[in-house]
Amino acid sequence: MSEQTKDKLIIFDTTLRDGEQSPGVTLNTEEKIEIARQLSRLGVNVLEAGFPVASPGDFNAVQRIAREVGPLMEGRTGEGRVNQEMVICGLARSVQHDIQTAYDAVKEAPRHRIHVFLATSDIHLEFKLKITREQCLQRIKDMVGFARSLCADIEFSPEDAGRSDHSFLCEALATAIKAGATTLNIPDTVGYNTPSEYGALIKHLRENTEGADSVVFSTHCHNDLGLATANTLAGISNGARQVEVTINGIGERAGNTSLEEVVMNIHTHPHSYPVQHTVNTRLFFSTSRMVEDLSGMAVQANKAIVGRNAFLHESGIHQDGVLKNKQTYEIIRPEDVGVTTGNLALGKHSGRHAFKTKLEDLGYGGPALSDAQFQAAFAKFKDLADSKKAGVTDGDMHALVADVRSSTLAGGSSAPPPAASEAADKRSSTSTDLPEDAHEAQAESALRFTLKHLQVFTGLGITPTATVTLHDAVRGADVTDVALANNGPIEATFSAIQRIIGVDIQLLNFNVAATSEGQDTLGKVAVRIARAAQEPEEGCLAPGGSVPKFTGLATNVDIITASASAYISAVNRMIGHDESDNRASHKDRKVDI
Amino acid sequence: MSEQTKDKLIIFDTTLRDGEQSPGVTLNTEEKIEIARQLSRLGVNVLEAGFPVASPGDFNAVQRIAREVGPLMEGRTGEGRVNQEMVICGLARSVQHDIQTAYDAVKEAPRHRIHVFLATSDIHLEFKLKITREQCLQRIKDMVGFARSLCADIEFSPEDAGRSDHSFLCEALATAIKAGATTLNIPDTVGYNTPSEYGALIKHLRENTEGADSVVFSTHCHNDLGLATANTLAGISNGARQVEVTINGIGERAGNTSLEEVVMNIHTHPHSYPVQHTVNTRLFFSTSRMVEDLSGMAVQANKAIVGRNAFLHESGIHQDGVLKNKQTYEIIRPEDVGVTTGNLALGKHSGRHAFKTKLEDLGYGGPALSDAQFQAAFAKFKDLADSKKAGVTDGDMHALVADVRSSTLAGGSSAPPPAASEAADKRSSTSTDLPEDAHEAQAESALRFTLKHLQVFTGLGITPTATVTLHDAVRGADVTDVALANNGPIEATFSAIQRIIGVDIQLLNFNVAATSEGQDTLGKVAVRIARAAQEPEEGCLAPGGSVPKFTGLATNVDIITASASAYISAVNRMIGHDESDNRASHKDRKVDI
Repeated sequence: MSEQTKDKLIIFDTTLRDGEQSPGVTLNTEEKIEIARQLSRLGVNVLEAGFPVASPGDFNAVQRIAREVGPLMEGRTGEGRVNQEMVICGLARSVQHDIQTAYDAVKEAPRHRIHVFLATSDIHLEFKLKITREQCLQRIKDMVGFARSLCADIEFSPEDAGRSDHSFLCEALATAIKAGATTLNIPDTVGYNTPSEYGALIKHLRENTEGADSVVFSTHCHNDLGLATANTLAGISNGARQVEVTINGIGERAGNTSLEEVVMNIHTHPHSYPVQHTVNTRLFFSTSRMVEDLSGMAVQANKAIVGRNAFLHESGIHQDGVLKNKQTYEIIRPEDVGVTTGNLALGKHSGRHAFKTKLEDLGYGGPALSDAQFQAAFAKFKDLADSKKAGVTDGDMHALVADVRSSTLAGGSSAPPPAASEAADKRSSTSTDLPEDAHEAQAESALRFTLKHLQVFTGLGITPTATVTLHDAVRGADVTDVALANNGPIEATFSAIQRIIGVDIQLLNFNVAATSEGQDTLGKVAVRIARAAQEPEEGCLAPGGSVPKFTGLATNVDIITASASAYISAVNRMIGHDESDNRASHKDRKVDI
Repeated sequence: MSEQTKDKLIIFDTTLRDGEQSPGVTLNTEEKIEIARQLSRLGVNVLEAGFPVASPGDFNAVQRIAREVGPLMEGRTGEGRVNQEMVICGLARSVQHDIQTAYDAVKEAPRHRIHVFLATSDIHLEFKLKITREQCLQRIKDMVGFARSLCADIEFSPEDAGRSDHSFLCEALATAIKAGATTLNIPDTVGYNTPSEYGALIKHLRENTEGADSVVFSTHCHNDLGLATANTLAGISNGARQVEVTINGIGERAGNTSLEEVVMNIHTHPHSYPVQHTVNTRLFFSTSRMVEDLSGMAVQANKAIVGRNAFLHESGIHQDGVLKNKQTYEIIRPEDVGVTTGNLALGKHSGRHAFKTKLEDLGYGGPALSDAQFQAAFAKFKDLADSKKAGVTDGDMHALVADVRSSTLAGGSSAPPPAASEAADKRSSTSTDLPEDAHEAQAESALRFTLKHLQVFTGLGITPTATVTLHDAVRGADVTDVALANNGPIEATFSAIQRIIGVDIQLLNFNVAATSEGQDTLGKVAVRIARAAQEPEEGCLAPGGSVPKFTGLATNVDIITASASAYISAVNRMIGHDESDNRASHKDRKVDI
């Protein structure tokens, strides 16, 4: 089969829905939009942007992605590219209100889809849904039909397909097709299928479902036994033409199928699979880094395709030999997935042009950074180049970009605040003296707090103390406070910041990594926080649950300064966070597909 | 096929040989022995302990593992266990000196094996070995024959089997069998086979090699496309009865096949594979943590089986449903792989018994810690319990164990040093004033330097300074020095320590992670160092190459104190490191199988 006549594989990315269900991950709206833009540039065909009914925050995120990212064509045109807008998809249970809400969230995208799911296994029908098989078929007919009355592109997923009776499953799928479904997605919900089992299931369903020829079959695999990629490929070999995947394979438990692994298998084995892809593989590494940074889910060095070591060939013979005699497969060159190998360090004399070229090489070209972000990154680069004798490495550059993105992404999206300097005071040690409008007063470019001064004393047998001065944009003044801690200088620093901002904060996660080798390497700090003692929330899918979480990233040669900056960045997001955003419990809106 | 009549799968672990080839990983002898002991308890059948001819250090490590770990039967007896000593294996090129050296290194183990390899692809024969096919066959005959004259258990690997002519490969394997090979290992060297290709290759070789019935076929897969586990399982389904694997899948590039993934596939799908295993899966998590800590190769949260999130089921329905209706497969319960779910925190009133029980639950029972290590861990635990209000979590416990192991493992194994206090001086800022015998003067329990005092001042716009006092066991005195730094308090602290020890050190890697949630979490610091400006080395496999590297780990609520402790731990290892140990270039002894 020639490449031209092959079916195009539909990449359905669920990083923002199933990936975001990873324990500890909660992306806010701005972060989701940032990732969605990158996935659009990458060439993703369908983006599952969220589960709109789960909360007003989810609805808002999906709606903004539909409006702002749905129409984008940057990076999507040309030979071998998708040449269409990205389809924006919203998830819905088989309930009219869910479906209507999902439609309302996605409808402004030029191309949009509703993804409806209902369990089809007897155990789910009996214990969870408390309906009979007949009622199940009726509900599929009614709800897929309702969805189709709103929108021409409808995906249906039989939840727990793996344990559903096969003939009933075929009946359920045929019902969905008759009611108007255009894509049928078959989840290996618990990640326990072998490739031969999963391939056989896809084949069986295609052969035994009435109307199967008129729809696209889709894979949805989990990696509990390390076989998600193999199962997905087995699905493709057996007729699936859509794959549900996430960047870095993030997702609940051991995660979902990795987008980059599936695509590179097809890319390197053009003769082994009956499909072609339209993804720009050169953006894999930078996309992986972005998702790693914003989700806080670190990628291990020995991860296939996007791990730091994936292309470190220690023995030269090996790679040479392969290149001399590439036969049945194409070897992956590092640059094919956006890993630059030259690793030519930039120095203090490198100008704006060299800096820009390097950013482009690393996958941050064109619209990846706004003008303001580019200027901020260049300023940070010059500071860094002055202090680093060995030059600024690719690792440092990735960290710089993450830092700039983090510090310029506030939580909310409302207009800049009115001047509120009358509220300024040198100290604010209670949580009640913030101006009323402070919570919604942050725009992207108007950060509430900035670090002006920091002084820390610590050691073995010494009580750590930190003195911090922040500029408060709302009060229009610098505020200084001091704190001590039992548990080291970072805690003292964070406590002093908390005293200044007057909000009780819970530190959920704290991580420091070096960006490259050597003593003057940058420390990259990631912190994740939430308000302590959040009030219970109402109006969501289910009561109770977790509070919104905020990530801050910063890089500095001084780990304590980096920690303070990261913490302040997270605080700015938390304070700027639209109160209506992301209010839903994270756990409550998890679904098992 | 009933479980009783199934073939037993032979687990050949190469964490210490191929795994150690991961970029940045260099395990010293004590670390290798520690891992070898754990792999023995786990039930590994064959342990590839190293490449003895590569360097005197490699030889010494393999020999000590053969002597000290080879005879161990702890954890290996009982129903469903291996009930035999672990086979200790040494790798050798097809050269008489290599084979003799490998044999000398492993021969003291009750059960031992020599693993001989030779390339069989035309490209390797022509460009690398510069021999004809006939010469290749002759060399296999001679060298496998020579190995067999020393030892009854011989493994042969055709390097670059994937690109070798199939009929010549069968001829080469038949030659190896005739010369006495008992195991034939088929590497997918570049990790680019699909499962169906690799399975077909194993099948073809078994069907077309003369004498194939009398030997064991073995898989050796790499994970470049995320398919190592699937390829290995395809090998088993097509007749392989040995699998070459590493803990956490570490190895060059994207790594080797994960031991834990292959075993858990067989464990959960007893009816899908024609083999049974004899591994104690309950030790997976603690073994994974040990390899992670000692190798410095972090495991991502969404890694199958051993990732931190692998068993975090956020939605209860899901797991319940599975447990109610387990049909064709067995679900993995977290405790099956050593993940404790209760996560009952220990508090300041917890006694020695509760502490010990918790350690056992976490997979550190019995001989996992020496008495001295247990006492040290308990003392650290009591200190920590005093300062942590929320109690000591499982994450903290794993970190404590890693810390104690790191701080009690010196590099060398020679006798304690003679008193050398006459060399003591308040300052030692050059590298020439160490006593002559200081380099080989460290025994396991006699650490050269201990941290007595630390005082750090830093901040934004402040030049960081650190004052450090170390006790020097060789000089028998406390030594204090101070340093400043351009790049933060950690650099200042490390510089002050360098001044005291008088050795120029290169910082290769620095990482901090929190062990659990919350502000009083432990910071776990890992540093990796090498001597700066190492002299070129002689007598190794090849000239040039990299210098030995040393890891130090420490945990403390204060990140700077933890950093100082980790650095000192690494320094103690470096200084105690037997000069003859690990002298070979790491890169030079890499082989592509």
